[in-house]
Amino acid sequence: MTRPRSRRHPPSFGEPAAGNGILSRRVFLESAVVAGTAGAGISTASAEPLAIESWMKEPGAGFAPYGQPSRFQDKVVRAILSPPNPPLPGVGTARTPLHLLDGTITPSGLHFERSHSGIPDIDPDQHRLVIHGHVRRPLVFTVEALHRYPMQSRIAFIECAGNSGALNAPQAQPLGIAAIHGLLGCSEWTGVKLSTLLDEAGVDPSARWVIAEGADAAGMSRSIPLAKAMDDALVCLYQNGERVRPSNGYPVRLLVPGFEGNMNVKWLRRLKLTSGPAMTKDETSKYTILLKDEKAWQFVFPMEVKSVITRPAPGITLRGPGFYEISGLAWSGNGSIRQVDVSADGGQSWAPAALQGPILPKAPVRFRAPWQWNGGPAVLQSRATDDTGMMQPTRAAFATERGLRGVYHYNAIASWRIDDKGEATNVYG
Amino acid sequence: MTRPRSRRHPPSFGEPAAGNGILSRRVFLESAVVAGTAGAGISTASAEPLAIESWMKEPGAGFAPYGQPSRFQDKVVRAILSPPNPPLPGVGTARTPLHLLDGTITPSGLHFERSHSGIPDIDPDQHRLVIHGHVRRPLVFTVEALHRYPMQSRIAFIECAGNSGALNAPQAQPLGIAAIHGLLGCSEWTGVKLSTLLDEAGVDPSARWVIAEGADAAGMSRSIPLAKAMDDALVCLYQNGERVRPSNGYPVRLLVPGFEGNMNVKWLRRLKLTSGPAMTKDETSKYTILLKDEKAWQFVFPMEVKSVITRPAPGITLRGPGFYEISGLAWSGNGSIRQVDVSADGGQSWAPAALQGPILPKAPVRFRAPWQWNGGPAVLQSRATDDTGMMQPTRAAFATERGLRGVYHYNAIASWRIDDKGEATNVYG
Repeated sequence: MTRPRSRRHPPSFGEPAAGNGILSRRVFLESAVVAGTAGAGISTASAEPLAIESWMKEPGAGFAPYGQPSRFQDKVVRAILSPPNPPLPGVGTARTPLHLLDGTITPSGLHFERSHSGIPDIDPDQHRLVIHGHVRRPLVFTVEALHRYPMQSRIAFIECAGNSGALNAPQAQPLGIAAIHGLLGCSEWTGVKLSTLLDEAGVDPSARWVIAEGADAAGMSRSIPLAKAMDDALVCLYQNGERVRPSNGYPVRLLVPGFEGNMNVKWLRRLKLTSGPAMTKDETSKYTILLKDEKAWQFVFPMEVKSVITRPAPGITLRGPGFYEISGLAWSGNGSIRQVDVSADGGQSWAPAALQGPILPKAPVRFRAPWQWNGGPAVLQSRATDDTGMMQPTRAAFATERGLRGVYHYNAIASWRIDDKGEATNVYG
Repeated sequence: MTRPRSRRHPPSFGEPAAGNGILSRRVFLESAVVAGTAGAGISTASAEPLAIESWMKEPGAGFAPYGQPSRFQDKVVRAILSPPNPPLPGVGTARTPLHLLDGTITPSGLHFERSHSGIPDIDPDQHRLVIHGHVRRPLVFTVEALHRYPMQSRIAFIECAGNSGALNAPQAQPLGIAAIHGLLGCSEWTGVKLSTLLDEAGVDPSARWVIAEGADAAGMSRSIPLAKAMDDALVCLYQNGERVRPSNGYPVRLLVPGFEGNMNVKWLRRLKLTSGPAMTKDETSKYTILLKDEKAWQFVFPMEVKSVITRPAPGITLRGPGFYEISGLAWSGNGSIRQVDVSADGGQSWAPAALQGPILPKAPVRFRAPWQWNGGPAVLQSRATDDTGMMQPTRAAFATERGLRGVYHYNAIASWRIDDKGEATNVYG
């Protein structure tokens, strides 16, 4: 057994790396909460024998066939926001409480939902997937038949095109992270490459688009360029190891990595190859990018580079000055995250955050940066850059380019203000 | 919009790569289920309009704060095996149904459990983690205080040392994959590096071991070399994005990547630094490797290189001859998986499987290989090699080296026999 490397000296805070307490990355693994705070839940009493808590004095619970979170975590739930008029069940959104999570995988029970007509209760033995239109041989697949094909797995984010749309409001709203940024999820998806199934059907040379339709009551459908379908689209049967859940498209969901959330059609029942887009409701009246000059962009598919600080964030109160880790997620529908910078002074100064590997294309990256809070006001920001060289714009630059009349594809730098009580609020930094 | 690459020719099966139907990797993404099978749930009828199933005729269900799997998946549960005499609740194992899953992440609700005294119901506000013994400054942490520290995330497997121990039996038992190999799980774990906390306490030069103790009624405890504790051990607060579940150690679990499952102490309450191992019950009377010459290995910590085919497997019936994908998991507690070979003729011939990236150290890798089943008997095997050069032994070689009297660290090549009805059974190949 080799001796551990000697690190007997007291841990240091490292050098300042940016204003208002952002520390250098060198300190990243050698923080000093004890030295840097007044107590904060740490004490030096440790007399033996240790106290025996009540739960050690009797046998614990038995096994459950399918496990659940602790009852003490019952506040860790999705925020359900429905359009108020009329309140139809299952129409609206259920948003992920990003401030209560860590890592990059979203637990499937907390993955966001955007639903247009509720969650259908689909019998997998009755469900069929049809591929037709401009193909040599139209095909109908049972779910069991799809299981015969070679599969692939990949970790990928899905982000609703309307995520963070609340930041288009003229005044910063007193909203939490779920309400603002919670239409973002990340799963390990497993399924059959769409190109495999299209090859089976035989793509006609006249085909340019694939119309994907869901088996919900809305028949939600989107037009997907054939090139994307043949590149990396996946007909998913599994999410985070188990079968895709009803709220995420059971028994079959389309994954179109990096593209607008609702193009990843849930409850997938039809793929029709066509020579042109279908101009469905959800690519004409909705999911277009309204610009300031009365024009709109249509068919802008990839979700642009973006990041959000998940801790500190509204709903998490800092317990006195001292050391904290700033942690968040960064992602890009155009590729991989190359760098994330953080600021504690509203963007006046920046320092690079540490990125948690593996860094995968079209998957969120967890970033972390050490911060010494002095107890005074601070404005925390993060700014991601992807490997195409695109960097998140400031809100002002975003407004100059596109205006703030739209609700989709908002990806400007977001800000949390920390007040002297340690509370975080949404501000325009 | 660029044109997709032209692949108008009918997909081919590729060349045979090994005996009894194993195909070359070239075919991996261009299979041909239709061409290779008689129907099997695929048909060419696709008249418009498509049938409207009942679930499309009415609005679906509303949102749930915390989601669950489909009711049609209610058979996808853990297999609960308890020691029969006496049947105490929570003593025994709950085993993962690997044949019903895909990808590499284990859904937290299906992660295996090995419990010695049931699952304690721990109030996180009352729970404390103590670090003491050979340290300069003994410390007591609340769970909230642990959240102040810099965190790391990593994907890692945990495998019970007793996993696959059933294959030590002289005759192959008619068991399923959960009962044989289901003491294996993989999660994205997030927490504070143990080295960070030990640095806070100040490791005394005389310290060589860390005794980790759980807050269950058994006070389950193991001795961990200090070098490992300072290397990559993690004090975990999150599993697959959300807080660790009670069955996996809520509110705090130790991760000792690659080491025997129960060294990843759940409900972690104490880390005591010592000059020698504690010789606890679970490293003396249990969790030692009994050899054929009446001796035993103690303190053999890493789980050796291993693999298992998860599909086909017992409980999954092949529906007639034709194309199938052979899929499974490979892992090593000593490093990364370098290669997995598969055989359909009981190890007479082998072909390399495709490995699904990212390939991470001490994390399972999903492997996949195309197989054309001729409808006759076959014996499927997989054989993993890690980046230290270690390859899984045959059962005969394993028996020659260690004998078959133990129950721990069994990592020999496993076999599923496929009969002419398409049923899979456990055999010694």
